[in-house]
Amino acid sequence: MSAAARKILQRIEALAKITDEPGRVTRLFASPAMRRANALIASWMREAGMKPRVDAIGNLIGHYAGEKSGAKILLLGSHLDTVHNAGKFDGPLGVILGIACVAELHRGKIRLPFAIEVIGFADEEGARYQTAYLGSKVLAGCFDASDLKRTDAAGISMADAIKGSGGGPAKLKSARLNPKRLLGYVEAHIEQGPVLEKENLAVGIVTAIAGQSRFKITFTGHAGHAGTTPMNLRQDALCAAAEFVLAAEKFARKAPGLVATVGQIKAEPGASNVIPGEVNLTLDVRHQRDSVRRKACAALQKIARQIAFVREAKISWQLVQQTSSMPCAPKLSSLLRRAVRKFQPRVIELASGAGHDAVVMGRITPAAMMFIRCKDGISHHPDESAKPGDISVALKVMNDFIQSLARQT
Amino acid sequence: MSAAARKILQRIEALAKITDEPGRVTRLFASPAMRRANALIASWMREAGMKPRVDAIGNLIGHYAGEKSGAKILLLGSHLDTVHNAGKFDGPLGVILGIACVAELHRGKIRLPFAIEVIGFADEEGARYQTAYLGSKVLAGCFDASDLKRTDAAGISMADAIKGSGGGPAKLKSARLNPKRLLGYVEAHIEQGPVLEKENLAVGIVTAIAGQSRFKITFTGHAGHAGTTPMNLRQDALCAAAEFVLAAEKFARKAPGLVATVGQIKAEPGASNVIPGEVNLTLDVRHQRDSVRRKACAALQKIARQIAFVREAKISWQLVQQTSSMPCAPKLSSLLRRAVRKFQPRVIELASGAGHDAVVMGRITPAAMMFIRCKDGISHHPDESAKPGDISVALKVMNDFIQSLARQT
Repeated sequence: MSAAARKILQRIEALAKITDEPGRVTRLFASPAMRRANALIASWMREAGMKPRVDAIGNLIGHYAGEKSGAKILLLGSHLDTVHNAGKFDGPLGVILGIACVAELHRGKIRLPFAIEVIGFADEEGARYQTAYLGSKVLAGCFDASDLKRTDAAGISMADAIKGSGGGPAKLKSARLNPKRLLGYVEAHIEQGPVLEKENLAVGIVTAIAGQSRFKITFTGHAGHAGTTPMNLRQDALCAAAEFVLAAEKFARKAPGLVATVGQIKAEPGASNVIPGEVNLTLDVRHQRDSVRRKACAALQKIARQIAFVREAKISWQLVQQTSSMPCAPKLSSLLRRAVRKFQPRVIELASGAGHDAVVMGRITPAAMMFIRCKDGISHHPDESAKPGDISVALKVMNDFIQSLARQT
Repeated sequence: MSAAARKILQRIEALAKITDEPGRVTRLFASPAMRRANALIASWMREAGMKPRVDAIGNLIGHYAGEKSGAKILLLGSHLDTVHNAGKFDGPLGVILGIACVAELHRGKIRLPFAIEVIGFADEEGARYQTAYLGSKVLAGCFDASDLKRTDAAGISMADAIKGSGGGPAKLKSARLNPKRLLGYVEAHIEQGPVLEKENLAVGIVTAIAGQSRFKITFTGHAGHAGTTPMNLRQDALCAAAEFVLAAEKFARKAPGLVATVGQIKAEPGASNVIPGEVNLTLDVRHQRDSVRRKACAALQKIARQIAFVREAKISWQLVQQTSSMPCAPKLSSLLRRAVRKFQPRVIELASGAGHDAVVMGRITPAAMMFIRCKDGISHHPDESAKPGDISVALKVMNDFIQSLARQT
């Protein structure tokens, strides 16, 4: 393990001790733990020759000046908030890795044709207010002010939470970054999936952050007595739903890169001796190409209607949420790809099925992402982990990427 | 509609007004409504020339003497307790029909070679203490005294409830009927299923009360992120469960008289964006022949294991409850069959998938049942209903049956 990778892991461990829930890793938006985390990381930023600031929503931003004042800015980063009972790597790794890159430059007294800002975003997981990307939305100038009225589980409004943590709800608009000054945004993040592990590779290049459609589906048949209703006289809503679950799986298996998931299912009335008369389920469909996802959703809806028709059941199909795909910036991704080629035997490109702050940053500047292998694809869980060797590779790739970008700028 | 059928329906309506939950039909074991129901029905029994008594557990029993004292006793009846928010017919119809039969004899001043006792059982549904057949178990001498310690939702023990409603927990043993004095038990009940309606017949003869096996089944796969886990790397427990739901349906459809139902299903962790790692479901299997049911259960377990094996999932298969089939008494059923033949074009024989007090009474005396068509097969619901014309037929059948039995005795 390189000394730099060791330092990154030590910092990951140190940061994991800063939590809102003792005994678990939990850092919620605008919480005391987030303030302490920002303070600790700001000290690391200073050590790396950066000038840290915390903006109006609580994003921590460390500035490493370029050769000339007024130089464009390369943004590196990820988020510092977590889900409840989180792992240590999801978010922090990208921030701490960014600081390590700058520390390398600082050690060599190197100034680049661009400035670097490392950002620790204030809210990507949305565990406190059920809204994601609050931090990056402020920087991208697309924060929705009506969110300030949202309240958390304790009844505290977002506006009060921001004030209480030293931020300024009234200053959110002016906290936006000027897109003209930005060179791009690059985020390193654990994969949160099993692909890199399966491929036995340390890092991968993200081609796009997948678009997502989420549906609420209801099959309505006819409830009946489990003992007295012969099989041929049933309209079992659960059997219809089961057909759909398998049809969705089959459909997605055939379409490269498509994922379709039924994560929730509920049978009504839900007694062991009653035939289900109604079944509610969720469907989550994702693909990096919006056209593929849209066609898949239409096809799945048709399949569901067909299943309902054959079984004389009714179906309700309701779109709950939809986000478009965010293709990663070709130029930045190409530089990342070249760097990866130097430090591991093969380059793998994969879509991100999960959302990231890069989705929002991509609206104002070219954005790219690198994934780092994580154990068993586990995330949002204390077992989340990444290997020191993989972190070494990621650091080398990011340093190389920065050097290449500097040569091209 | 015959005058007698009209009177039965009027009494069904009158009884439905006696409830523990105003605005709904709910009569729970040993409740104030059950005491009032017993009092009202006792008055109808007296009107029909019977001598009513309430036993130690709260069964209402009306005695119509035979030609000679010491004559054997034909038992007719059903239950008077209900589920919460019940229909009006499930239970009461069998009791009120029995009284109408006796009233017919009384009107004609007819005494038979046997006495008749009409029983309104105190607890068939078990809505208060989650135990069924309390009333018939006392009469059959197989009441489990440890049940007296059970408490209801308000914390009242069964012993206290029995005392509070005028019964005697200490006298339950002596309340048993002497099997030697019994001629048999015949219960008329709404079908609670759609078969008679489908066959366009008023009544049907019950061949047996189906045995039942109830299982709790768990498929364990691997939870994962719905966005980041490719389809080919998933172990989705819900897909395994869905395969099983459909396999159970397919299996039961092929086996005449078999019913298999998955009534409850729960996916864990149960979030729309997480692949289900574990799914718990119930399986209810019934058939009138125990050997068929046992073979079916073994085959379904094998199918479930096979599904789990192919999907690299784990399976847990747990028997929760099992009751044997109760074949109806051939002699009584044969007399019922002959009577039915006189009053409707065809005789249909069907198994009862639901449990009835006849299951318990069958332990001490020959027991038989007649089903009466109910609208849409609905029961345990305010929409439960039976046609006046069908009730007329049922009454004629039962009267004829009693006459035939008298001729043979």
